Amino acid sequence: MAEASRRTTLADIARLAGVGLGTASRALSDAPNVAPETRRRVRQVAEDQQYVVSPDASRLAKGDTGRVALLIPHLSRWYFGAVVEGLDSVLRQADLDVLLYHVGDLRDRKEFFRKLPARRKVDAVVVVAFQVDDQEQRRLELMGVHVVAAGGQIATYPFVSIDDYAAARQAVNHLVQLGHRRIAMLEATDPDQPTLVTRRSDAYYDALGEAGVAVDPDLVVTSDWGGENGALAMGQLLGLRHQPTAIYAQSDEVALGAIRTIRRAGLRIPEDISVVGIDDHPTAALADLTTVRQDPYEQGRRSGELLLAIMRGESLDYDPTVPTQLVVRATTGPPRRSPA
Amino acid sequence: MAEASRRTTLADIARLAGVGLGTASRALSDAPNVAPETRRRVRQVAEDQQYVVSPDASRLAKGDTGRVALLIPHLSRWYFGAVVEGLDSVLRQADLDVLLYHVGDLRDRKEFFRKLPARRKVDAVVVVAFQVDDQEQRRLELMGVHVVAAGGQIATYPFVSIDDYAAARQAVNHLVQLGHRRIAMLEATDPDQPTLVTRRSDAYYDALGEAGVAVDPDLVVTSDWGGENGALAMGQLLGLRHQPTAIYAQSDEVALGAIRTIRRAGLRIPEDISVVGIDDHPTAALADLTTVRQDPYEQGRRSGELLLAIMRGESLDYDPTVPTQLVVRATTGPPRRSPA
Repeated sequence: MAEASRRTTLADIARLAGVGLGTASRALSDAPNVAPETRRRVRQVAEDQQYVVSPDASRLAKGDTGRVALLIPHLSRWYFGAVVEGLDSVLRQADLDVLLYHVGDLRDRKEFFRKLPARRKVDAVVVVAFQVDDQEQRRLELMGVHVVAAGGQIATYPFVSIDDYAAARQAVNHLVQLGHRRIAMLEATDPDQPTLVTRRSDAYYDALGEAGVAVDPDLVVTSDWGGENGALAMGQLLGLRHQPTAIYAQSDEVALGAIRTIRRAGLRIPEDISVVGIDDHPTAALADLTTVRQDPYEQGRRSGELLLAIMRGESLDYDPTVPTQLVVRATTGPPRRSPA
Repeated sequence: MAEASRRTTLADIARLAGVGLGTASRALSDAPNVAPETRRRVRQVAEDQQYVVSPDASRLAKGDTGRVALLIPHLSRWYFGAVVEGLDSVLRQADLDVLLYHVGDLRDRKEFFRKLPARRKVDAVVVVAFQVDDQEQRRLELMGVHVVAAGGQIATYPFVSIDDYAAARQAVNHLVQLGHRRIAMLEATDPDQPTLVTRRSDAYYDALGEAGVAVDPDLVVTSDWGGENGALAMGQLLGLRHQPTAIYAQSDEVALGAIRTIRRAGLRIPEDISVVGIDDHPTAALADLTTVRQDPYEQGRRSGELLLAIMRGESLDYDPTVPTQLVVRATTGPPRRSPA
């Protein structure tokens, strides 16, 4: 104890904010009978001082705030919304309130973790398909706040996700089995999910390798996630002297963008070029797109149940992987000319 | 005062729950030092008794819970997610916490309003694209909880929305101006938004009437909202002896479903049949779909600002309508044969 560096105490916060100890405590724990102005001032001081409410010093750490924070990078994307629906279905059953934090960029996330200690409003944090860094994770642990990831594969704290490598293998194997050899990959980078992209790319190289197909580097085009980027990347592939007969896109939106470019170029799908995606986005069925289905609602539901088990102190013998399935529709077929 | 019917008091709740008055008050106002079990019991009694926390009896009614509830029917649909992003951007700036309530069906909504009085956790409720009924609205007023609607046109409380009639006119006028006379309507019912559908349908009848075109009832097909239903409805139109030359779909997802059916039937778009939607859903651009663009993020942002103005007691001189724009892409063109 003696060697611990001096930590900011609640008394420091009270003194700096010019209030009594009881008022400071009430202001930080969301209790009544504190004027809004005072509450704001105390919280500001606590934030500035990087004050962490001690688990022993506050009733809130006993796990009865009744609130869970969901941190979500993209609210308007189907995948994220469906994960939240699944989470919500479980958390509401448990009578927990769901606080929503839209953390669209790195600044938002830093801000969330900076402010959290002084507020300590939640018992747990669920991060939807992005990674919390080591420092943030330690900070949550220090506060006694649980953390679970819904979507995205992370090793250092509990998560539920699909197996991105297996999903990508399902997509590429389908093209190989149809007889394709010149298979292009539309690689979609996502700063939030670097391991996801890596695993979806590894599967491509492995599948071709096992089929005895040498990878042509011209057939791999990397761009940012999203449909418009997929459309541009496809244009690059159509400019090749020796065009691909099939496209493996790392997401359905990228695949849909590629399809637009192929159609505009006057080529037929799948007669001239086959296209496969990953996701089974709701519009994939409407576009007759062959894809690999993942179930984000189920990923959310299971991560919610995982969180409840953790909060109840139960053992964590669980399967983190939600399976995926190939869905064959009208955008894939055998190559026109038999491969060599 | 004397003639008011006897209302349940906090003392009644305390007695029925077998706790003191102070404990009952703390349990209902989210204050510390109440055992979770006790809190649950008191709340249950309050719910059963339909107890409403009086604005004068609780600090929470002073507008400093710092929390706003968002009630959202569909989390995984683009429109709703984008509205929430817009709302969140404003509410977070104001340092308000956003509590998420996924109210997928009528039962969920009744449940929310049934439980709200005993909890009184929020200063305001934002309903995203559905209608609160008169009784629910009175209940919110009684508690001093503000209500604002984001999306969907409602007259009895503040809202921000597009003009659905004007948006639909933009879509149908475009087809009329291209020379189409046999224009079909894929009418998409949505129990949450009856007035939206009515206005989008009225615009069709008016636009045809003004163009001197008699409406053929065979050309109006009504189905539930969503792409698969649009696909089925389109099949019904293709079965007609005298087929339409153009399709006005009341949403992009319905339009995308119709396009799949048209393509599967071996017909060309727009040479054989033109299709226009409403929304500018992110996948509309990828499908080269002509549509009428609405901006749900902006609708959310403006309704957030409207709510803040109301909470600050400012005057409500605001424009509730976010404009829409026709976006011409590749799914519409003149009819093949010149109309009579």
